[in-house]
Amino acid sequence: MLQFNKFESGKVKAVKIGLLGFGTVGGGTLTVLQRNMEEISRRAGREIKVVAIAVNDLGKKRDIDTGGIELTDRMLDIVNNPDIQVIVELIGGGDDVFNAVMQSLEKGKHVVTANKALIASHGNAIFRKASEKGLMVGFESAVAGGIPIIKLIREGLSANQIEWFVGIINGTCNYILSQMADRQREFDDVLEEAQELGYAEADPSFDVGGVDAAHKLTILASIAFGVPLRFESVYIQGIEHIQKIDIEYADELGFRMKHLGISRRTGDGLELRVHPALIPKQNLIASVSGVMNAVLIQADAVGQSMFYGPGAGSEPTASAVVADLIDVVRAFTTDPQNRVPHLAFQADSLIDLPVLDIGLIETSYYLRMQAVNRPGVLAAISSIFGENEISIDSILQKGHGQPDELVTVILMTQNTREKNLMKAVEKVEALDSVEGKIVWIRVERLP
Amino acid sequence: MLQFNKFESGKVKAVKIGLLGFGTVGGGTLTVLQRNMEEISRRAGREIKVVAIAVNDLGKKRDIDTGGIELTDRMLDIVNNPDIQVIVELIGGGDDVFNAVMQSLEKGKHVVTANKALIASHGNAIFRKASEKGLMVGFESAVAGGIPIIKLIREGLSANQIEWFVGIINGTCNYILSQMADRQREFDDVLEEAQELGYAEADPSFDVGGVDAAHKLTILASIAFGVPLRFESVYIQGIEHIQKIDIEYADELGFRMKHLGISRRTGDGLELRVHPALIPKQNLIASVSGVMNAVLIQADAVGQSMFYGPGAGSEPTASAVVADLIDVVRAFTTDPQNRVPHLAFQADSLIDLPVLDIGLIETSYYLRMQAVNRPGVLAAISSIFGENEISIDSILQKGHGQPDELVTVILMTQNTREKNLMKAVEKVEALDSVEGKIVWIRVERLP
Repeated sequence: MLQFNKFESGKVKAVKIGLLGFGTVGGGTLTVLQRNMEEISRRAGREIKVVAIAVNDLGKKRDIDTGGIELTDRMLDIVNNPDIQVIVELIGGGDDVFNAVMQSLEKGKHVVTANKALIASHGNAIFRKASEKGLMVGFESAVAGGIPIIKLIREGLSANQIEWFVGIINGTCNYILSQMADRQREFDDVLEEAQELGYAEADPSFDVGGVDAAHKLTILASIAFGVPLRFESVYIQGIEHIQKIDIEYADELGFRMKHLGISRRTGDGLELRVHPALIPKQNLIASVSGVMNAVLIQADAVGQSMFYGPGAGSEPTASAVVADLIDVVRAFTTDPQNRVPHLAFQADSLIDLPVLDIGLIETSYYLRMQAVNRPGVLAAISSIFGENEISIDSILQKGHGQPDELVTVILMTQNTREKNLMKAVEKVEALDSVEGKIVWIRVERLP
Repeated sequence: MLQFNKFESGKVKAVKIGLLGFGTVGGGTLTVLQRNMEEISRRAGREIKVVAIAVNDLGKKRDIDTGGIELTDRMLDIVNNPDIQVIVELIGGGDDVFNAVMQSLEKGKHVVTANKALIASHGNAIFRKASEKGLMVGFESAVAGGIPIIKLIREGLSANQIEWFVGIINGTCNYILSQMADRQREFDDVLEEAQELGYAEADPSFDVGGVDAAHKLTILASIAFGVPLRFESVYIQGIEHIQKIDIEYADELGFRMKHLGISRRTGDGLELRVHPALIPKQNLIASVSGVMNAVLIQADAVGQSMFYGPGAGSEPTASAVVADLIDVVRAFTTDPQNRVPHLAFQADSLIDLPVLDIGLIETSYYLRMQAVNRPGVLAAISSIFGENEISIDSILQKGHGQPDELVTVILMTQNTREKNLMKAVEKVEALDSVEGKIVWIRVERLP
């Protein structure tokens, strides 16, 4: 404790911060700052002190002892408080907090935020304002909670040209898919349980529909490739339609089902896509299960690396908020042009690469269809794929149907353009010998 | 290219660096700097330029085009060159380069080094000198090559109290143990092949004996726990004695064999140990195989996170060297007291925790012994463990020997103090009904 008393003695002034929002992450941030005050001070060289918190309802009973910290229900009191040097925005949501953040910057305050929707949708404007004012905006906690993935890509891999990355960046989706695989259960069944356990929201569409992952992908792609934030260009597909039967067939073929955010720089432009995909079991990221997150990165000098940890939760997210605070505090006196740029690349050297239409991406596919068990049917299906320049990796019939009865056919393609695949799917579905719709799922072979 | 020309036009001055050493990592560093010059400049806001390289033998033919870079065999010419702002030490080895690094600091130059032996053995003196001079010493590349593990622990997890970490931090050991497990081969056999493939040195003792891992563990423990570098206190055990039979039995019991660096903060002091250990298959780190490295960290706010990537090699290591260079360049004008401290914690707040004697650590154990197949023998063995306060998790006899013949007995303990285990081993070995030495291996249950 000797070491710590030095900081209390006033040798170095404590940094004063204000929290906007006091929910799960706000509470966690105060808890971590209080519990680890000594360690944090030993690292940062000064104390970081919450002096005011904006809450929604002043009357609400709270579990956390806020000590002498001023609570207010007027957010602007904190934004306008001249003593406060850093505003920590932990309210969440998009447009409504945008104004508070812009006003904080206008007032000359640095900002730390855990708000992925805000950064994905308004980051370009926020960073422009911050640069004008010579201020910092930290957003490590906006992506993959406890994994310092922003710092890793922005600083750790700064010598590399990043080629692609894939991320398991939504814990709810990963929990549901893991349960479907491990317990042979259907989506609706697991979702209900996830809601009871608090792993899924009452309205789960934001998570299972892929929007949350798309926010995070937007941010990661921007810092990985030096492009402006382009949330509106992300292709988004959720996991609501995934059936356990396909997870089982994929398992037999050596693949696991994951909901991924994927971005890749190609000669034609940038891939930005969020969707379920099958990945080879032997890749380490296939073993990431439950609510955990992981990001696998292919970079030219390093090769493959992977970063794994909790993607959400009170204290994991708070850990990233506080790490941002320490970074911001350290760079208070740094010449703004020597700070780490918000989007990893100097603002005037961002390149607005075109985002590839989903029809133009190249990947492999798993297809499941019901076909009549009759000579020539597999040949007819195969030839349609051939005509559309799609090479088939394997084709197998499940079970032994009687002649002229329906059997399940599973087909795996090699890499092909998605628009070719779609044409082939349409033509195969039109065959008399194929019944109903084809189930198709992208396959990422992760070289 | 438009963006890049800006930097060439002289708007921002290029930073001039000198390399000491031009082997595998030196060559990789020049290659990465040249190939990714544009991306690096877009990130760092200026160019980083190698202007001189110290080599051993000026006459040697080299594959890399060094362009107009000055080559010299007089290291001091570079150390004394007033144009050079950062010295990059990539010679390796300990005592002999220590002087060159100290002189570089004396001359007011920042230093980046990939030299784990140097930092583990002389880091305390080097960082003291650097602090006196207000200079930076980057050593990201000294541990786990392409994984930015120093940055992760020092900055990414700065809000946390780190409780423990385990690392697969020697690629040679991990390659050998992976091959022994996957191909059912013995140590000597795999080592020979690893040497042919270039994964192991002609004198492999540094790697397979654990010294290399101990250097890295020393550095990681220091930045994780805020303690001075204490290489001399690390318990070191290599993998030369590991037999494939134990890998096979462990597999049946649900464990994998890994060579680990382990550090844990306990109430009694710090654990600092390098040795082979069995870990549960279901933990993600058990799936890290081949020459890859990974570090699993338990921290109070984040919980468990894991960082995975190549631990060595020319360009992965160069990636870390260049990332350090970018960090150093960015912090040129930062007030030294606001820079990230070398050992993560402010130099005057390091705490020299006692290092626990290996006899005092608490972990679990796997034991294999030859015992006579006779009623009462297992009871006699079990009671010795009980007398030494060791709880047995499981005990099983392999195979069905005839009465009074020798059979193999496998025993797994619960957590216990190592000195108790050693006493029990000695007493069991002394039993008439037990033949020869007991094979014992530590088991890390990784909660």
